[in-house]
Amino acid sequence: MDKDRTVFEQGLVAVKGNQIIAVTDGKDVENYKAKTTIDAEGDIVMPGLINTHTHVSMTVFRSLAEDVPDRQYRYIFPLEKKLVSRDMVRIGAQLGNVEMLKGGVTTYADMYYFEDEVARTVDKIGMRAVLGQTVIIFPVADAANAEEGIQYALNFIEEYKDHPRITPAFAPHAPYTNSTEILQKVTELSLQHNVPVMIHLAESDREIEAIAERSGGKSPVAYMADIGALTPNLVAAHVIYVDDNDIALLKKHDVGIAHNMRANIKSAKGVSPAMKMQQQGLRIGLGTDGPMSGNTLSTIDEFNQVAKVHKLVNKDRAAMPPIKVIEMATIGAARALHMEDTIGSLEKGKLADIIVIDTKAPNMVPVYNPYSALVYSAYATNVKHTIVDGNMLMEDRNMLTVDETAIREEALAFADKVRKTVIESGEIIQ
Amino acid sequence: MDKDRTVFEQGLVAVKGNQIIAVTDGKDVENYKAKTTIDAEGDIVMPGLINTHTHVSMTVFRSLAEDVPDRQYRYIFPLEKKLVSRDMVRIGAQLGNVEMLKGGVTTYADMYYFEDEVARTVDKIGMRAVLGQTVIIFPVADAANAEEGIQYALNFIEEYKDHPRITPAFAPHAPYTNSTEILQKVTELSLQHNVPVMIHLAESDREIEAIAERSGGKSPVAYMADIGALTPNLVAAHVIYVDDNDIALLKKHDVGIAHNMRANIKSAKGVSPAMKMQQQGLRIGLGTDGPMSGNTLSTIDEFNQVAKVHKLVNKDRAAMPPIKVIEMATIGAARALHMEDTIGSLEKGKLADIIVIDTKAPNMVPVYNPYSALVYSAYATNVKHTIVDGNMLMEDRNMLTVDETAIREEALAFADKVRKTVIESGEIIQ
Repeated sequence: MDKDRTVFEQGLVAVKGNQIIAVTDGKDVENYKAKTTIDAEGDIVMPGLINTHTHVSMTVFRSLAEDVPDRQYRYIFPLEKKLVSRDMVRIGAQLGNVEMLKGGVTTYADMYYFEDEVARTVDKIGMRAVLGQTVIIFPVADAANAEEGIQYALNFIEEYKDHPRITPAFAPHAPYTNSTEILQKVTELSLQHNVPVMIHLAESDREIEAIAERSGGKSPVAYMADIGALTPNLVAAHVIYVDDNDIALLKKHDVGIAHNMRANIKSAKGVSPAMKMQQQGLRIGLGTDGPMSGNTLSTIDEFNQVAKVHKLVNKDRAAMPPIKVIEMATIGAARALHMEDTIGSLEKGKLADIIVIDTKAPNMVPVYNPYSALVYSAYATNVKHTIVDGNMLMEDRNMLTVDETAIREEALAFADKVRKTVIESGEIIQ
Repeated sequence: MDKDRTVFEQGLVAVKGNQIIAVTDGKDVENYKAKTTIDAEGDIVMPGLINTHTHVSMTVFRSLAEDVPDRQYRYIFPLEKKLVSRDMVRIGAQLGNVEMLKGGVTTYADMYYFEDEVARTVDKIGMRAVLGQTVIIFPVADAANAEEGIQYALNFIEEYKDHPRITPAFAPHAPYTNSTEILQKVTELSLQHNVPVMIHLAESDREIEAIAERSGGKSPVAYMADIGALTPNLVAAHVIYVDDNDIALLKKHDVGIAHNMRANIKSAKGVSPAMKMQQQGLRIGLGTDGPMSGNTLSTIDEFNQVAKVHKLVNKDRAAMPPIKVIEMATIGAARALHMEDTIGSLEKGKLADIIVIDTKAPNMVPVYNPYSALVYSAYATNVKHTIVDGNMLMEDRNMLTVDETAIREEALAFADKVRKTVIESGEIIQ
């Protein structure tokens, strides 16, 4: 995954410290002396995956209240009001981090509460992340209102602004759950502090109606452009309900896009025109959405559906070929987060975020074309090793920097609390 | 998965020989003395999965010539003409069998050539299968014409009619690749020998046109009804292009249906009205299609897309809830193969085809609802143990009855032959 999309049948990747210093066909192997050598022996070596949109801590709510109408307002927001805490955020993030690393995700973009807790788990496990502190109009676990959310975010940004692997960010929930003034203030502060802004955009009927009412009939994207909230710092998740004019605005303002196919069709929202946005050169990458929406957190789980649902809706079996999916999972996702200068490909000078995919699992035999094999056949569990910032974090499917069993047990104990709190009381019917 | 869809939070399944003799809440555990006890310790115990449609031997062609127009006639038929042999069928089936058992499939329905070779691999590994010998109008590897295909099938049926785990069958490829006379002859012979008939039906534009021309404008299903080829012995794969009249005919004649979502949308063919057929009580189960089409062979890989694409096309997030998907993977699939009296559920008197799903993998934590967890979160690789006919065939992901490494190496050697034959010559551009 370099500029020319080179595939080496045999090759080597040389790493020094946290950087890639060479990617070659391996004929010059004698020129390198390594402390550690990983023999990938026929497996696929590729850039670490970048998950451009999730809510990692929600792993502890996974498989609750599936497929119910008006799920966000009837179940998710009340559940969060009752159960989100520093502990919940930490416990859920720990589990989600393990799941992502085991599924080949080396960098992720998160939007949630108590993001300083998420940051501590990311720091400890050794991943890379863009962490967005939520700003929302109603009272939530870590703020009484949007102003308090902004203040929380500013403190968080101050604490983590110099972290080598963590990028702190603002995460206004959505246009319809914030006022124009708050959206403008967040935009201004993000430019001032040079940090990303992550938002849910053009995602739901409710949003379309609320924004049309607020703006005299404008689309969410056009409204955001009007109020000055479309900037190169913005990463917009979902982007389903957009027309050509909206897409032009997103391109003009160099906005990053997170495409979350599995979550979007699960809620029957529709299919984002991601293919068109990719073809027009927009910054677009894959995301899984949170585990109450997309359920699992490796973008490998998106590959099959992204390739196929675009074929279905475009009535064209040649649409969204495997290489385009892999681009959205790697360099495209890096571009969506404006991080393409440092991650998203295996090239000299880039950070050493590298994964190795096992090609010996029966579902991966044989590999005539690595892109097709990855997109149509691979499971997240086919990831064999995950390296972030030059450090091996998962080797032969074993976590090296955290205790997976202890993390699972803490998550299961929290799930028991969820059962006692909202399931046994009948608030959520399973 | 019994008649009442009972879920035991704690429970036991008692097996004697190849039969289930009890399924209880476990309070009567003292009543049973077992030679072997498997402690499923919080994992999910469920009926083995039934893959109602595949071409197992095509694993050796997986990821070749993806997404090209007119793929079947331009690539697949010529490829098969050149490379299908007894060896290829055996090598591909061995690999696919391992993949299926590791993905929780205990019974599968196959349509291909040299099915006696497939049968030998199934016999050896210990799975259950319905194996359909192809009947097709043009010359293929094991027959010069359809009559020869019928003769091959008759010999195969004679050889395997008394096998305890293998059901031999006819597999006329499709209505448009056989004459009316051949379809009628196969139907008659199937009733006479009391064996299934498997066919691709209502799958492609080419078929619709050819059958309309042959029959004075009839749909493939109406044509099959007219010529007397719809019988309770028939299992029809795909069934995409059907209207209410066709569905009524399929129901009236008690035809089984194999629903292959991932393969169908990959080729942009469209979405089968599987939900409607299931709601109307038709015999319908999940299939993966062959590995050049669906690519992987566990129906777990279908779950997520089946649940979600039906929501998308019906614009209803409540459509195709997880329990309905699990029904199509188990008892529904057994009904599609007319085997619901012996497999497809965990009930006293049924054959002991049982799988255990690991709930400790991070993607499966926590499980608030087993159906949601299975459909929205599980990977095929989360299957921990697979038991067929009372015998443990995979334990802790290790194959017990075959040598997985030797099977993989034989497949990789065959893949090298494919590379030399059709890729290096430029016949197939990868």
